[in-house]
Amino acid sequence: MSVRARVLIDCDDEKGLVYKISKLFFDKNLNIESNQEFVDSQTNRFFMRTVVTGEFDPSLLQKELIAVLSNNANIKVIMPQKKKIVIMATKESHALGDILIRHQDDELDAEIIAVVANHDTLQQLVRRFDIPFFHVSAEGISREEHEEIVINLLKGFEFDYIVLAKYMRILTSNFVSNFMGKIINIHHSFLPAFIGANPYKQAFERGVKIIGATAHFVTNDLDEGPIISQDVIPVNHRFDWMDMQRAGRDVEKIVLSRALNLVLSDRIFVNGNKTIVF
Amino acid sequence: MSVRARVLIDCDDEKGLVYKISKLFFDKNLNIESNQEFVDSQTNRFFMRTVVTGEFDPSLLQKELIAVLSNNANIKVIMPQKKKIVIMATKESHALGDILIRHQDDELDAEIIAVVANHDTLQQLVRRFDIPFFHVSAEGISREEHEEIVINLLKGFEFDYIVLAKYMRILTSNFVSNFMGKIINIHHSFLPAFIGANPYKQAFERGVKIIGATAHFVTNDLDEGPIISQDVIPVNHRFDWMDMQRAGRDVEKIVLSRALNLVLSDRIFVNGNKTIVF
Amino acid sequence: MSVRARVLIDCDDEKGLVYKISKLFFDKNLNIESNQEFVDSQTNRFFMRTVVTGEFDPSLLQKELIAVLSNNANIKVIMPQKKKIVIMATKESHALGDILIRHQDDELDAEIIAVVANHDTLQQLVRRFDIPFFHVSAEGISREEHEEIVINLLKGFEFDYIVLAKYMRILTSNFVSNFMGKIINIHHSFLPAFIGANPYKQAFERGVKIIGATAHFVTNDLDEGPIISQDVIPVNHRFDWMDMQRAGRDVEKIVLSRALNLVLSDRIFVNGNKTIVF
Amino acid sequence: MSVRARVLIDCDDEKGLVYKISKLFFDKNLNIESNQEFVDSQTNRFFMRTVVTGEFDPSLLQKELIAVLSNNANIKVIMPQKKKIVIMATKESHALGDILIRHQDDELDAEIIAVVANHDTLQQLVRRFDIPFFHVSAEGISREEHEEIVINLLKGFEFDYIVLAKYMRILTSNFVSNFMGKIINIHHSFLPAFIGANPYKQAFERGVKIIGATAHFVTNDLDEGPIISQDVIPVNHRFDWMDMQRAGRDVEKIVLSRALNLVLSDRIFVNGNKTIVF
Repeated sequence: MSVRARVLIDCDDEKGLVYKISKLFFDKNLNIESNQEFVDSQTNRFFMRTVVTGEFDPSLLQKELIAVLSNNANIKVIMPQKKKIVIMATKESHALGDILIRHQDDELDAEIIAVVANHDTLQQLVRRFDIPFFHVSAEGISREEHEEIVINLLKGFEFDYIVLAKYMRILTSNFVSNFMGKIINIHHSFLPAFIGANPYKQAFERGVKIIGATAHFVTNDLDEGPIISQDVIPVNHRFDWMDMQRAGRDVEKIVLSRALNLVLSDRIFVNGNKTIVF
Repeated sequence: MSVRARVLIDCDDEKGLVYKISKLFFDKNLNIESNQEFVDSQTNRFFMRTVVTGEFDPSLLQKELIAVLSNNANIKVIMPQKKKIVIMATKESHALGDILIRHQDDELDAEIIAVVANHDTLQQLVRRFDIPFFHVSAEGISREEHEEIVINLLKGFEFDYIVLAKYMRILTSNFVSNFMGKIINIHHSFLPAFIGANPYKQAFERGVKIIGATAHFVTNDLDEGPIISQDVIPVNHRFDWMDMQRAGRDVEKIVLSRALNLVLSDRIFVNGNKTIVF
Repeated sequence: MSVRARVLIDCDDEKGLVYKISKLFFDKNLNIESNQEFVDSQTNRFFMRTVVTGEFDPSLLQKELIAVLSNNANIKVIMPQKKKIVIMATKESHALGDILIRHQDDELDAEIIAVVANHDTLQQLVRRFDIPFFHVSAEGISREEHEEIVINLLKGFEFDYIVLAKYMRILTSNFVSNFMGKIINIHHSFLPAFIGANPYKQAFERGVKIIGATAHFVTNDLDEGPIISQDVIPVNHRFDWMDMQRAGRDVEKIVLSRALNLVLSDRIFVNGNKTIVF
Repeated sequence: MSVRARVLIDCDDEKGLVYKISKLFFDKNLNIESNQEFVDSQTNRFFMRTVVTGEFDPSLLQKELIAVLSNNANIKVIMPQKKKIVIMATKESHALGDILIRHQDDELDAEIIAVVANHDTLQQLVRRFDIPFFHVSAEGISREEHEEIVINLLKGFEFDYIVLAKYMRILTSNFVSNFMGKIINIHHSFLPAFIGANPYKQAFERGVKIIGATAHFVTNDLDEGPIISQDVIPVNHRFDWMDMQRAGRDVEKIVLSRALNLVLSDRIFVNGNKTIVF
C-alpha cells in the first residue's frame, strides 16, 4: 500500500549528502513529489524537506536515514496527519477566533485539544465550538504557582504545539524549557519594536505609518525567538491609538494563522535563532 | 487673471474656524478645488490644506487670513511652482539616482540646485545630469569643522529643502538647527529599528522576514524626527546580508521618492513629532 | 444634551458651498470634529463627510441643510449607532466566519439580523453564535421563484445592508433593484478579472504571481458595481489551484471586512460607478 | 582551479532523477552550494537549479548530464557572468532610467549593449551613460518594414535578452519568433487587465483602488506570455488618471527590475505558459 511522508533532515553539510539520501530513496523505489534544500554557509548546516511516496515503513526509513547520515543529524519521517495543538489566551478573541473558524472549516491541519486562559472571558466563545476551555486564574497566587498549575494541566494533554493567541502573561524560562521548540507566539509588532506596556499607544505617539506583527517560536526571552512570519498594515494620522490597535489585531491574526499553517505542514526548520521556511 | 494657490493653515482649534475661512474665500469669490482638514483632539490643533482658484493676490490673501485667524496661526499661501532642493549624499547612488532620473523626467516638482557629498564617488553620476556637484571631504578635520564648511556652502544657495539621500554622517544639533524643518532623511529601517553600525547585518542575524525603510524630517536626534512615509519589502532565509542590503536599497529609494513628492506638493504638516499627510 | 452626528452631503459643486454649510454649523454653535471634502472635477459633484457635536436636533439640522443647499443635494444626518445587516451565503464559511467573530468581539459596528443561505451547510456555524439562520433551497425551482422567496424573506426584516459573504448565485436585476445601493459583494479577484466558472483554476493555469479580491456595491451587473476596497496576496509556482483558492479566501475575508467597516462608519460615497472613501 | 556554475535542468520527471544527477556531482567531487527542485504534477515535468563548485570543465559536465538524463532534457551549465542585454524603448524613461542607474551602480548583473528606440526622445538620457543609442523611426514605413530594420540591427549584436522598457509598438509574431524566449516585457497592469488604448484612464474610470504591473516573457501574443513578476500599488479617489499613470510608472519600473534580476541570475524556468521562480 502506497504511503506519503514528509522527510525532514537537518545535519552538518558535507559533500555527497544529497547523493546518499537520494540513493536511499532510489534503492527503496520511492518517488520524490517535492524537494527543497538549503545550506547555511555560515553554520555549515544542511536542511532538507522532501515529500516521498511509495511502499515503505516510515520508521524503517528513518532508521535507514540515520544509518546513512552522520551522527549529529536530526531526521524526521512524518506521515501527514492533523497535529494536536493547545491554545493559550487571555481576554482578546481576534487571534483565537480566527483559529477557531479555520478549525471549524477544516482549513487548519490541526485538532484543537483545549484552550487554556487566565481569564474566563473567552469561555463562551470557545464553548460555542465544543472545545474544552480551562480557566486557570492567576488571582492571588505567584507567577510560579500559576505556571505550575498550567504546566501540570498541559502535561495531562498529548499535543504537538502550544499556540499563544494573545496570551498576555510573561512566561518564565522554567515554563519555556518544559515545552522548548513547541511554543508559537504572536508579537504585536515588528521586532525590534516598541517595548513596554502599550505598544500601540507608543506607535501612535511616534506617528508611524505602518503597523506590523511577528509570529515566532518562544525561547527563553519571550519576544526574541526565531521569526516564522511577519507582515504589516498601513495606518495614518486619522488613526487614534485604538484604531491602531484594531488594525494591529487584523495583522496579528493573519500573521499567526499563516505561521501556524507553515508549522503544521512541517515547513519550518529552526536554525539557531532563525528559521528556514520551505 | 485667474491664479491657483495652496492655502496651508495650522492653528489652535476653535468653533467657527472653517466658517471664518470659507467666508473669506466666498467673499473674495474664490473657488475651492480641494480641501482637507484634520483636528488633533489631543493637542487641539487644526490643520487645513485647501487649493483655491480665482482672481486674487496671494500675499494679500495671506494677510487677510492672518487678520481673521488667531495669533498663533501658521498660514501659507503657496503658488505651485518647482521647489529648490539640495541633495546630500556619500557613496551610495540608489536613492540619489532615483531622484536624478525623476528630475530628468520632469516627474519631480523640484529643481536640484546642487549635490553635496563627503566623498567624490558620485561626482561622475551627478555630472552626467549637468547638476553641480560639491565634494566636501571630511578627511583630517573635525566633525564641527566639516559641518561649518557644508553649512557655509549651503547658505550660499537658495533652497527649500535638503534631501539626505543616504548621507552617512551624523549631523550635529548645530547643523540641524540651522535648517530646522527643512531636512528630509531616509532611514534604512523601521523605527524603532536595529541601531548601530550595520543594520542589515543585524536584520540578517535576527532572521527577519521583512525589511523596511522610513522617510522622516530630521530634528535634533537624527533618526527620531516626524515620519513622512514608510514601506516594507519581503525577504527570506535565502537572503544573505548583502541581498538584504540590496532589497533595502530598493525600498529606501521608493520611500524617499514618495516622501519627497508629498513634501514638494505641500501635503505634509508637522504636528509635534508626527506628521499629517493630506 | 450634547449629541454627535455624521453629516453626509453629496450635491452639485458651486462656489460658497463650504461657506454656507459651515455658516449653518457656526450659527447653530456646532463643533466640527472632523471634516473631509472632495470635488469630482469631471462630474462637478461635491462630497462632504463631517462629524459634528453640539446640542441640536438631527432631523431639524437635516431640514436646515436642505433649505440652504440646492435641490439636487443628498443630505444625511446620521447618529452613530449599530447598523442592521443581513448576510447571504452559500457553503463557504471563511467570509461569514470572519464577520461572525468580529460581531461577537463587538468589533463590527453592526447587528446581524439574519443569515440567509441557499444551502444548509453553514447552519451549525451560524447557530453557534445564536443568530437566526434561514435556509432557502433553490432546488427544483426557477431562479425567479427562488429570488421571490428570498426577497419576501428579506422584506420581512428591517436592515441597512445585505452582505454577500460568498453567496454563489447570480442575482437578477429584479433582485438588485429591490435593494439598490444596499448590497455589498466580495469578488474573488481583481476587476477586470478571470471570468467564468473557476477563477482560481484560471489564475493557476495562467501562472499569476498575485491573487486579489475586490469588495464592491452590487449594481445590475453582479461584478461591475462601485469598488469599495481591493487587496492582494502573493502566490507562487508551488501553489496548486486549491492553494490559490485558500490564499484567495484569506484575502477575500480581509477585503470584505475592511469594506464593511468603511460602509458601517458611513465613509463611502457612491459617485456614479466609483466610490469616494473618506 | 575551482569554478562555480549554475546547473539548470528541465526534463520529464522519472524515479531516480535526483539520485542520478547527485551521483554524477558526487563522482566528480562537486560541492552543492544551493539546490532547488520542482515537479509540475500536471505536466510531469521536473525542474532543477543547482549551484555547484569544484574543479570541473563546465562543457564536459553538460555532456555528462546529457548522457545520464533522458533525451528530452534541457541542460545548461552556466558560469556566472554578466549577461548582455539590448533595451527597446519609445519615449517614457522611467523603466529605462531605473535600469540605467542600476547598471551604473553595478547592481545589474548585465552589460547593456544598446538602447533601440522608435523615437529620439531618450537619446540624451542614454548618451549621459555612454551607452549606444539607436533611433529607428517608424515614420512613413509599414510595421513590417520597421521591424525588418530593427531585426537586422539586433542581429548585428550579440546579446542574451531584449528588455522592452515601455516599448509602445506591437510586435509581430515574425519579430517574436526571431528572438523566442529572449524578450522580457513590462505590462502596465495585472493580467487579465484593461485592454486597449489608455489603460490608466480605464482604471480611473472604473475607480480601482489598486494598480498593478506584470513582467513577462513575450510570446506571440504580446501580453500573454509567461509571467515572471507582479506587484501592486494603492491608489484612491483623489488620483486623477495622470496620478494613476504616475503610480503605475513606479510599480512598472520596480516590477521590471525585479524580473530582470531574476532572469539574469538564471532563476526563471519557463514551463508552458507559466514560470518557475527559484
